[in-house]
Amino acid sequence: MSMGLDVSQLPDIDALTVGILGGTGDQGRGLAYRWARAGQRVRIGSRVAQRGEQAAAELAGMPGVAAGTVTGGDNAYACGADVVVVAVPWEAHAATLRDLVKPLVGKIVVDCVNPIGFDGKGPHALAVPEGSAAQQAAAVLPESRVCAGFHHVSAVLLADPQVSRVDLDVLVLGDDRDACAVVQALAHRIDGMRGVWAGRLRNAGQVEALTANLIAVNKRYKAHAGIRVTDL
Amino acid sequence: MSMGLDVSQLPDIDALTVGILGGTGDQGRGLAYRWARAGQRVRIGSRVAQRGEQAAAELAGMPGVAAGTVTGGDNAYACGADVVVVAVPWEAHAATLRDLVKPLVGKIVVDCVNPIGFDGKGPHALAVPEGSAAQQAAAVLPESRVCAGFHHVSAVLLADPQVSRVDLDVLVLGDDRDACAVVQALAHRIDGMRGVWAGRLRNAGQVEALTANLIAVNKRYKAHAGIRVTDL
Repeated sequence: MSMGLDVSQLPDIDALTVGILGGTGDQGRGLAYRWARAGQRVRIGSRVAQRGEQAAAELAGMPGVAAGTVTGGDNAYACGADVVVVAVPWEAHAATLRDLVKPLVGKIVVDCVNPIGFDGKGPHALAVPEGSAAQQAAAVLPESRVCAGFHHVSAVLLADPQVSRVDLDVLVLGDDRDACAVVQALAHRIDGMRGVWAGRLRNAGQVEALTANLIAVNKRYKAHAGIRVTDL
Repeated sequence: MSMGLDVSQLPDIDALTVGILGGTGDQGRGLAYRWARAGQRVRIGSRVAQRGEQAAAELAGMPGVAAGTVTGGDNAYACGADVVVVAVPWEAHAATLRDLVKPLVGKIVVDCVNPIGFDGKGPHALAVPEGSAAQQAAAVLPESRVCAGFHHVSAVLLADPQVSRVDLDVLVLGDDRDACAVVQALAHRIDGMRGVWAGRLRNAGQVEALTANLIAVNKRYKAHAGIRVTDL
């Protein structure tokens, strides 16, 4: 019934280097591990260069990671990559990007930050003046190619070397279709994942906020929930 | 890894009647057809009683629907059911519910309305002062047991008698766990569907808004997309 996802139309990204801002956090480190294991070169960035270097050294010692695949440094170092993933805590989001406007000019920037708060009633979406973290990134980085994706990946599954497949879909948001195709291809580099274009950047807010629902699901059902898009 | 969904813990709802406000629209009619086909008694409601009766007569003639399963009338007639699904257009949402406050006292009300707008750039989520259609319903109906669910069902698939299974998960939102369990059970009545509790009502907004993303997916990939929650 559906035409489905035509993976053959995605670009060849084998030669691209992926930088990760906030690569020492759970989400960034987990993604870095999966990409490194798939042979993608990764630059771990951190606020403090030494912490980025240390995280890279740790990842380099994990099962399936070839020598020389992962390097680390400060966030500016990570910006030297072809594609730069933003995986910093929401609280540090705007300030981190404001410091990196110049090195990110012309780069594909993949925002995967979830503005989520917690209180006595559990997780909930935070209001973002720009509409979403991704739209905030686009406002701060007018000369970058800002997309959004990788919001719903389970850091626990990503980081576990025993987990061979991470079966879920990455919803990729963005107005630059070529940039989105690169982000989709990055999802397909991880066994079990697909990258599905799911709307313009103005529709990123609900995708980010849905993470609150998945956290509620995880708590209720003792799961590491993600989502799949059906009929694709 | 996950404890998963324990369907055996869901309540027996075979004897419940389901009313549908806006049951002449695509989404309401599609759900009515599936429930009627599963043997659940359904009351189709409409702004105009005659249109509700007519829709019920049409549904009664569809494949797999037993005689006497579906009846129709105005929206107040639908409120005589045990569980009442709100499937009216977003524009009519608040006004419809304000007229039905009394007949809905004590009832389980399932809001499945998506506040979505369209412009030259496609679908987008509309801002709702209360946070979501479901929260608006809860504000208008303080003595009803308001839940939310069935936002992402494809009306096209639901209405097609040739489609035997509708494979997707219904995200059920609500603070009243017993009422949510009834809504989950209603999802499981439809072959291929599961009902997954996915957070309190305050987390309904992003689930409603995600419909804009699925519409974008449908357009891009020529699909009838829904979602599945993974690891359950």
